[in-house]
Amino acid sequence: MLAEIITIGDEILIGQIVDTNSAWMAHELNNIGISIKQISSVSDDREHILTALEEASKRADIILITGGLGPTKDDITKKTIADYFGVKLVENKEALSNVQEIFKRYNRPLLEVNRLQAQVPENCEVILNKNGTAPGMLFNEHGKIYISMPGVPHEMMYMMEDEVIPKLKSSLKLPVIIHKTILTVGEGESFLADRIADIEDSLPAYIKLAYLPKLGQVRLRLSGYGETEEALKREVNEFAQKIIERVANVVAAEEDIPIEKAILNYMAEKDLTLSVAESCTGGYISHLITQHPGSSKVFFGGAVSYSYELKERILGVKNETLTKFGAVSEETATEMVEGALHNFKSDYALAVTGIAGPDGGTIDKPVGTVWIAVASVNKTVVKKLTFGNKRKQNIERTAIAALNMLNTLLHDSGK
Amino acid sequence: MLAEIITIGDEILIGQIVDTNSAWMAHELNNIGISIKQISSVSDDREHILTALEEASKRADIILITGGLGPTKDDITKKTIADYFGVKLVENKEALSNVQEIFKRYNRPLLEVNRLQAQVPENCEVILNKNGTAPGMLFNEHGKIYISMPGVPHEMMYMMEDEVIPKLKSSLKLPVIIHKTILTVGEGESFLADRIADIEDSLPAYIKLAYLPKLGQVRLRLSGYGETEEALKREVNEFAQKIIERVANVVAAEEDIPIEKAILNYMAEKDLTLSVAESCTGGYISHLITQHPGSSKVFFGGAVSYSYELKERILGVKNETLTKFGAVSEETATEMVEGALHNFKSDYALAVTGIAGPDGGTIDKPVGTVWIAVASVNKTVVKKLTFGNKRKQNIERTAIAALNMLNTLLHDSGK
Repeated sequence: MLAEIITIGDEILIGQIVDTNSAWMAHELNNIGISIKQISSVSDDREHILTALEEASKRADIILITGGLGPTKDDITKKTIADYFGVKLVENKEALSNVQEIFKRYNRPLLEVNRLQAQVPENCEVILNKNGTAPGMLFNEHGKIYISMPGVPHEMMYMMEDEVIPKLKSSLKLPVIIHKTILTVGEGESFLADRIADIEDSLPAYIKLAYLPKLGQVRLRLSGYGETEEALKREVNEFAQKIIERVANVVAAEEDIPIEKAILNYMAEKDLTLSVAESCTGGYISHLITQHPGSSKVFFGGAVSYSYELKERILGVKNETLTKFGAVSEETATEMVEGALHNFKSDYALAVTGIAGPDGGTIDKPVGTVWIAVASVNKTVVKKLTFGNKRKQNIERTAIAALNMLNTLLHDSGK
Repeated sequence: MLAEIITIGDEILIGQIVDTNSAWMAHELNNIGISIKQISSVSDDREHILTALEEASKRADIILITGGLGPTKDDITKKTIADYFGVKLVENKEALSNVQEIFKRYNRPLLEVNRLQAQVPENCEVILNKNGTAPGMLFNEHGKIYISMPGVPHEMMYMMEDEVIPKLKSSLKLPVIIHKTILTVGEGESFLADRIADIEDSLPAYIKLAYLPKLGQVRLRLSGYGETEEALKREVNEFAQKIIERVANVVAAEEDIPIEKAILNYMAEKDLTLSVAESCTGGYISHLITQHPGSSKVFFGGAVSYSYELKERILGVKNETLTKFGAVSEETATEMVEGALHNFKSDYALAVTGIAGPDGGTIDKPVGTVWIAVASVNKTVVKKLTFGNKRKQNIERTAIAALNMLNTLLHDSGK
């Protein structure tokens, strides 16, 4: 089953925003056996949208459209789709009561432009928008399905998850696709490939293996395509098990979760607690951890200690350590992690200090120099890493490296 | 002058990577007066690429193509472009010596597949790739310019900056495009539109206004298209000034920057310092702030106080406050922000405590209940907000709301 995605909005075409919606949608659709033939970003222009709809409907069975559903003048998607089908716009009761409810909740008066948001082409099935005023719309015309959704990412995402995906699954005969993902850390793609070459060669044609590398981690994804779910699942799992046994020393998770979630799961199961002391990552590690529901069971919190003052006051780093060795040093990282462990009374702690850049480097400590420490009550491990001069990348790489070190310490301690 | 971007590669269509190249290219091209008509992501498939090239050349004068230039079998862009023009591939001396040089630099033997990378369609002008082995290619055929570049972001970027942009600027008569963006916070899109309706109506046809809403913020973007830069800039700025005056109470920045960057700029200029105490946002506010270079000039850091223990220990929240009113309360938020201000010795502080969800809510305090406090040495402002039950969204909305409150306090204090 083929689909196309059309994103509408000048802001994409002038490069003001990166279109992250399409990749997310493509990923979700692939999971249920729908392949994306093309993604097109077009302008808020009637003729252009009409042409894009026509071209897409020649190539695909499902056309997903995002953007241009707001209440302002530059949002013309709805009217254009009505023209495309040669139908009128009519007020939809359900959509109107949703708009009214939202305005009531925020105690705002309902303007005429907002009421207009409840108008939809008369041939559409309304998809409720729980997170905004613009309704989604589903059209089933000439054997093709058209779905129009808002471009605001979280509105589109919940609409996809709650309404669109279930609708597509129930109304179409989709092939069975089974994905099984293994998260590995600390081993390069080509080395992994080498270690499991014989297993990969033995895969039947309907099971594919993909290597998805990112920041010192590689996800191995097995995808099986077939007809009968149970048999396929069993077979995919058997191959996954073989791979897991072979590269057991670098496996961080046997499912498609990020490293911090694997850590949270493990620690929650063992009733262990964690605190952190972040300097150069500036709260990013805490954010990665706390974005997951239930993280408060494991995570006490910690310090974002950008200044000397905070390193001393919250973490108990000695002033002489900072002045003698500097904030970015093995000694400071060690005192930070031990300070977190002691002051915050957690079973494990993690600390990072470094120069994220782009400025602040010296000859001895160039931008990208990072010290990472992880500790349990029994053991402290400290490591120096050197990255490049891109601030954002340095923050992300440091966070992942620190989590990898913590994961290793946890599993070593557990043995 | 109109351009189109075609990105080639299955990894985009299965949602494995987000296409960040297109937004970057679009932004650069807009700056020199080239508008992007459409961005299309297509598969590594000959027929599909040929169709995309044909469709794009009907709409635009310049067609930029990225991806599919690697040495492996699935990279078919070069051969397909040669077919599109009906020409042969020939070895290019310059491209070959570039490949040889790169392999020499890394002490690697030159394989036959690598030598093939120096082959290009005979009608092209080679664009040197200083960062990789695949040459870029420029075609000038039937009054249209086609440019093919690698999909690896940094290879494409250097090629664009060093070669493509200068070539386009010198060989084409380009119009002038001026963008001006205003960041507003705390007022909905439709209310803003209502307040500035007469200004919007008075815009000439060559100046357009777009509303870009996101999480309680709306960016207003004016785009002017013309011939003379100075006059157009003046005119766009005049309209921007009218809008800024009209909605002054919700303007957070008069340029295209996020709210936390606007705060950092303002505080740096006034030599003010900031610390934070985050509970439900779990480090996200700190991360937003510290992702910006130079943030350490303003930001001392703070506490991510998930547990009672940390709220007491680092922030000095009284145990009786926590037990009597709970962690999510006006009293706790107030003690958190005042604790941060006092303990971390910053001029301003910000604190948030809430129930991010999806669990942990009660009848009195449902999921999405958030208390935010901002404070200077002279004034503390505390506010309760109620969001929905999506954790990620609650974290983001709380962060933006807190930054908005801080921004208001800063500007009120500055008066």
